[in-house]
Formats: sequence, structure tokens, C-alpha cells
Amino acid sequence: MQPVQDPHPTEASARHRVVVIGSGFGGLFATRALKRADVDVTLIARTTSHLFQPLLYQVATGILSEGEIAPATRELLRRQRNATTVLGDVTDIDLKARTVTSDSLGRTAVTSYDTLIVSAGAGQSYFGNDQFARYAPGMKDIDDALELRGLILGSFEQAELAALRGDRQGAARLMSFVVVGAGPTGVEMAGQIAELSRRTLKADFRRIDPTMSQITLLDAAPQVLPAFGERLGEIAQRRLRKMGVQVQLGAKVVDIDATGIEVEDVAGEQKGYRRRIEAVAKVWAAGVQASPLGGILARQSGAEVDRSGRIKVNPDLTLPGHPEVFVLGDMIALDNLPGVAQVAIQGGKFAAKQIKHRLAGRPTDPAFHYFDKGSMATVSRFSAVASVGRLRFGGFIAWLLWLVIHLFYLIGFKSRITTLLHWLISFLGRGRAERVITEQQVFAREAIERLGAAHQPHLP
Amino acid sequence: MQPVQDPHPTEASARHRVVVIGSGFGGLFATRALKRADVDVTLIARTTSHLFQPLLYQVATGILSEGEIAPATRELLRRQRNATTVLGDVTDIDLKARTVTSDSLGRTAVTSYDTLIVSAGAGQSYFGNDQFARYAPGMKDIDDALELRGLILGSFEQAELAALRGDRQGAARLMSFVVVGAGPTGVEMAGQIAELSRRTLKADFRRIDPTMSQITLLDAAPQVLPAFGERLGEIAQRRLRKMGVQVQLGAKVVDIDATGIEVEDVAGEQKGYRRRIEAVAKVWAAGVQASPLGGILARQSGAEVDRSGRIKVNPDLTLPGHPEVFVLGDMIALDNLPGVAQVAIQGGKFAAKQIKHRLAGRPTDPAFHYFDKGSMATVSRFSAVASVGRLRFGGFIAWLLWLVIHLFYLIGFKSRITTLLHWLISFLGRGRAERVITEQQVFAREAIERLGAAHQPHLP
Repeated sequence: MQPVQDPHPTEASARHRVVVIGSGFGGLFATRALKRADVDVTLIARTTSHLFQPLLYQVATGILSEGEIAPATRELLRRQRNATTVLGDVTDIDLKARTVTSDSLGRTAVTSYDTLIVSAGAGQSYFGNDQFARYAPGMKDIDDALELRGLILGSFEQAELAALRGDRQGAARLMSFVVVGAGPTGVEMAGQIAELSRRTLKADFRRIDPTMSQITLLDAAPQVLPAFGERLGEIAQRRLRKMGVQVQLGAKVVDIDATGIEVEDVAGEQKGYRRRIEAVAKVWAAGVQASPLGGILARQSGAEVDRSGRIKVNPDLTLPGHPEVFVLGDMIALDNLPGVAQVAIQGGKFAAKQIKHRLAGRPTDPAFHYFDKGSMATVSRFSAVASVGRLRFGGFIAWLLWLVIHLFYLIGFKSRITTLLHWLISFLGRGRAERVITEQQVFAREAIERLGAAHQPHLP
Repeated sequence: MQPVQDPHPTEASARHRVVVIGSGFGGLFATRALKRADVDVTLIARTTSHLFQPLLYQVATGILSEGEIAPATRELLRRQRNATTVLGDVTDIDLKARTVTSDSLGRTAVTSYDTLIVSAGAGQSYFGNDQFARYAPGMKDIDDALELRGLILGSFEQAELAALRGDRQGAARLMSFVVVGAGPTGVEMAGQIAELSRRTLKADFRRIDPTMSQITLLDAAPQVLPAFGERLGEIAQRRLRKMGVQVQLGAKVVDIDATGIEVEDVAGEQKGYRRRIEAVAKVWAAGVQASPLGGILARQSGAEVDRSGRIKVNPDLTLPGHPEVFVLGDMIALDNLPGVAQVAIQGGKFAAKQIKHRLAGRPTDPAFHYFDKGSMATVSRFSAVASVGRLRFGGFIAWLLWLVIHLFYLIGFKSRITTLLHWLISFLGRGRAERVITEQQVFAREAIERLGAAHQPHLP
């Protein structure tokens, strides 16, 4: 028995080697677009899945399972024989030697490239207050979403226990949720926590009334969803208020601890006024910071990076002075392109095309042109806002559009059917299919533990 | 705003108080059967979900999501107004004071009962070798199943990396899986790992051939599925062999470490012969040990416990000398009843009926009579063995029966549809919907890390 195949035949290594870093939208679409190219592609990613990040909030709130929004990357690339998927956390890039160093479980590997595509995305930014992370987890990957699911659902469980022992204040604090950041992720999270408490959990408890839980959406900006314009922001805000979400705008977070959050008004009559919101469960959806690989690329190439760690790339998405290195998606600062999936997807396809043209000796495109297909955010079931070209609309039609688009963008046939069903259950019924809290959700457990010391009540 | 409801009115506390420990089959069915009884039921459980344990292996091998086999207990009991679900790990029972002490996040609660139903199930037993747990996780709860999913899928990822750096021996060791224990869980796990490697992952890798992975099913007993009789054991064994599982019977585990397992033959020509199987991923499905609450009950009541920690209860499932305490399911030693779901379900219903008769002053039943509905185990898709009354059969018909029964036993409408779909995908197609490996799967990560020290290879 010999489970290991012969390594690639020697002549194969004479092929042009493309290394792709990241299995997100940019990396996956770049790799797929190279399917028929005469190259060897090695996709190096930190996780084994391609994450459909726009639906991450649905995992965090128990609608979808992690498998539904994160299919295995190597399954998606199964039929692409020129692509090899490799698990590894990229720790270094050497632009001179043209190598990428990656690590998996303490083992380092060095991979050589002829062309490099860097699409490592962005992480959460706490704007210099990294200590906030402990109390207000962000929502960037599956682990974050599962932690938040445990934190949110676990808070209601602990509130019931607090109420049982007569601790009304403790119960109220456990039923208070704060979402920081009123961009699409924050709006979607706040809306879903509202639906969870007002619909799903409505009749599940005996001593607390989940429909009375307090959900606060905070942002220092003067409106929700600033990227969607004033009118859609107002539609979304009205809808959120109707669902019981307290929208507090012009409010800056100054401190976060285990049981609450300190807020300062930055505008209006109350400017400079500080207050505290008591809440155990806090979600941070406020800022992003591009992958630290951007810094590594910038240091070696002399390229500029902006405040969010994004690289100022050439108009053709290459690293200044390095036409063999493409940078994609959330990692680039170019023409004020937004940090959305389409920028990464179109960038990935563009990079692949450029590589194919170069190899064929055909002229390449001097600049990447982003085609804005529009953007949308769901506020609740049956209600979304959409901005497509000059068209801006909100409500049920926008929601239907959101549904159809997201369903079809979810890669892989099987995800679509079960996802559609889980959506039917969740939108038409009141249930949530995924409410498991695992022991592994250490963060959630700790967050709730931090509430205070043990005491000895007597249950009735 | 006042999210906390008034505590139960005083007259309510005059009602008969039933405390149920455990949200498994016994606890859930006992609680449900008390729906129309004039009692207050408090269900105290360590987890927030009711686990459908017979399908746990499907979570461990990526077919179903955790939500599909573990619906929220309080959702299942939502409409039962006389039932309160409380999260807590029961740490003590005081038979004299008639109280149950439970803990959640360091906070202790004491609950009084008039009648107590203890249905805390069983955990994994390593027969005195608890150090094995570190290297060969058991499969008793959702966390175990998610750890195993990470361990199994992660092993293939690491095998691909080992092969990439030319470490054929390391790759082979990572593609070797050992399942200890050839009861239904072990057989199902071995069968599913075989299907995963032979079908699902078949074309997913570039440097390893998953279909060549080695799967070993070990047991000291002379046949697989001893409870099903010799003929069905042979059918299952033949089927497993056909799928590429190496079945080693009469083989006792003497030691387990990070990279392998030491086995000694206990019968046949080679009796006393010791050998080693190289394998990183090991699964322990060999023994069970009843909840330690059994010991607490035994010490205070003087009841006997057997080697597996099960209590010798009265024929009517009560604790000797304590007619107000019922013990159910995997925790009891009575008439050689097997540790299966039906014993717990029927016991739960029986206990509820006894309580209702007592309260009504009607005569109670002197003994619990178990109705054996039969048992079954799936070996692979389309193949199972079933033993129903005197009927014993294997193959496709048994599998169909398994499918129908399990589908209908899964509690809650929504689970059934999406579960059916995930099964269609998994049985008819080759996909697995749930292949996410989370960072939280510390055990899996550590198990693979324990392989050895880092070195510096150069990827081609």
C-alpha cells in the first residue's frame, strides 16, 4: 500500500508557477479563472474553507450552519487539475527570492512563485484599542461567528438563571446587546439579534421575556449605512427602530469592559456627554484592518499603505515595481474601491486574465476597471436596502433581490437547496436550525463568566 | 422597561415539584410525558440541546450539522408551560434534604424536588486508562464530534502537506485511522471514514490518494456488533472489508500514544502477540461509564453499582429506599437492559406515568417492562443490519428501515427536511455539507501537532 502519489513529473515544474494567498473571493476566483491556463497554481490558505463572508452574520445568529456558508476550498477546486490547495498561514513573502513562507502546526514550508497573487483580506480593527477585542468580539471568520452564537444564545440562558435567583439587574444586563458599527454587518447583526429575541426565543423562557431585551446599534457617523446614501440610511434606520433596535448615531465608543460600554456623543446638543450602556454581549463591527501581509509587501517594495493597512497598488493591481505581484480585494487602496466581495472577485478574474495575456505574449490591460453591480444590506426578513447604479430602493423588493442574488452566489449546488430551506424555516417560521452552543466556545463562556463572582441562591 | 417577569405566584409552589436531570432521551421524554400532569417540572441539563446521539457519528464525519441532531431543548419544550429548562451541571444531590445542586459558570443553584428523575446518561470509559483520552477521543457529545471532524479532515490536510515535503512515512501515518470498539458507534464511524476517504475526498488532493488510506476497526471481542448475533456480525464485517476497513478482532489495546496504538492478540494462534499500528487519528468507541451522579445516589441510598457505574434500581426504576427518585437509561443496571435510546425513552414515559398515578392516588405499576423495538446499525450508505424481534436482516432493506426510523425520530419538523436533503446529498452524491474545521477544535490541532517537531522543507 502506497498512499502517496509520485510528485509532479519534472517537466511540469517548468510550467509558470502562480501562488495565490487566501481562499476568499479574490483568491478563489483568481484560481478558477486560471483553470485553462498553462500554469501550476498553488493556493495557500489559513483555513480549509472558502468563506462566504456576507452571510457570516447568519451563522452568528443561528440561521445557517457553518458548512453552508463555508464549503471546503479543495472541494470547490476538485476538478481543476492545475490547482493545488495547501493549508498554511503565510508568515513571510520574499519579493527578491520570489518565495512565500507558510506555517501549519509549527511546520514551515517555502513555496516559490513566478507570479504571486496576494488576497489575504482584512481583519477586525479596534482603532488602536485592541483590549476591546476581549469584550466585544469582531466578526471576520467562522470561529468569530460561532463564538458570537454562543455568546448571544448563552446570554439568554444566563439571564434566565439570573432571573431565577431573583437578580433582575443581572438579567437585564445579560439581555442587553450592543452592536458597534452601523455598516452592513452591524445593521444585519442588530436586525438579526432583534428577530432572534422578538420571534425565535419569544416563548422559550419562563422567567425572562426575551422580547424585552435591549438592542443598541452604535456609530460615530451621523447615519446608518453611510455608503448607501441618506435616503436608504433613513429607511434602514426606521425599520430597525420598528424592530426595537435603539439606533444611537454620533456616538463614539470610549471604553469597553466585561459588563458594559462607555459612549461619548460626538455631535448634537449633547456633544461631549459620556454615558454607560450596561451589556454583557457586545459585537464589534466597526472597522477593518488589511492583512499584515500588506505591510510585508510595502516594506520590501516601498509601496505606500494607508491607515487601514491597505496598499496603494498600480492601476493594474500590481505592486509598484513588481509586475509579478498582484494584490486584491480588501488589501488594496485604489480609486476608493469599497471593501466588498465584487472588488475581490473582479480583481481576481482581472489578475488571472493579465497572467494569461502575458504568457501568450498578448498586450495586457493597463488598468483594472471595477464594475459596480450595486450593493445591498438586509435589515430584517422581508426588508432590505439596495443600491444598484442610480437606483436606490428599500423594502420587500430589495429583500427579494438580496435573496436571489445571495442564493445564486453561494457556490455549489448543495449549499443552495439546504440553505434555501433553512431560510424558509427562518423567514416563514420562527425557528432557527442552528442553536448549538459548544463547550469549545471559550470566549463566550469567559465573557459571561466575567460577570462576577459566584454566590449561593436557592431556586424556588 | 422590565425584561424580567414576576416569579411564579406563591400558590404555584404548592404544586408537586419534579426535577429532571439531563436533556437526553430519558429526561426529555419524561418531561414531555408530564405535560398534562399537575406538577411543575424543572429540567436541569449541562447543555442547551437535546442530542440525538445515534447520529453523532454523522456530525463527526461531516454529513450533518450540529444543529440538525441537537435542537435546543427549550425550543422542544416551548409549549409545555409547566416545564422550566435550566442550564446547569449537577454537582450534588441530597436525598435527605431533597435538593439538587447545579453549577453554571461558577454560580451554584440549589433546587428542591418532591420527585427526582435522574437521567444523566453515560460518558466514555477507557477502562482505567484515562491517559488514552488525550490520543483517542471518545464520541459522546457535540464537542467530541466536532473535535473528531477536525481531527479526521485535518489529518488529510496534514498528510497532503507531508507528501508535499516528501515525507511519505508521515503522510501514511496521517492517513491511517484506527477505531477502537466494534459496537454500533465504532462500526458506523469506521464505515463513514471509509466512505469519506473512498468517495468524498477521492479527487480533492494532489499529492496523496485518500482512497488508499488505512482504516482499522479493532475489538477484543471475537465478532463485530456482538449484540446483533453472529450472522449479522458477519454481514457487517464482510461489508466493512469490502469498503476497505481492516477489521481486527480478538485484539486488545494495550497502549496509545500520539502516533500509534499498541495491540495485543487475545485469542487465536497469535495469542499474546503484540504489534503496533501507526496512526495519528484514533477514535475511542469502546466503553461507557455511567454518570458520576450514580455514585452520589448509591453512596446515600446504599444501592449497588456495577463496574460501569450503573445503579441496581428497583424493578420500577426507583432508587432502593427512595420511591421518590427514578433513575433512567444508561445509568441503570436492570435485567441486562442495553444502553440504547429506547430504554431511556420508555423509562422516561414510565416514570412520568408512575408520578401521575401516585398523584391521582391510583395504583402504580410494580415493574418497568421494556419493549424491544429492535436495533440497527448502518455500515455504509445503502447497507445496514437490523434486528427486530426474531427477525435479523442486513443490506438495503435494513438501511431503508434505518433511514425512515431515524428521520421520524428526529424531533422537530425542520430538522427532518434539511436532514433528508443533507442525506440525499451525501448518499446519492459524494459531497459532505459540513466540512468546516474551526480554530476552536483545539484537540484536533494538538493531536496533529503532537506528531513531531518542525522542519524546513522546500515546496516544489
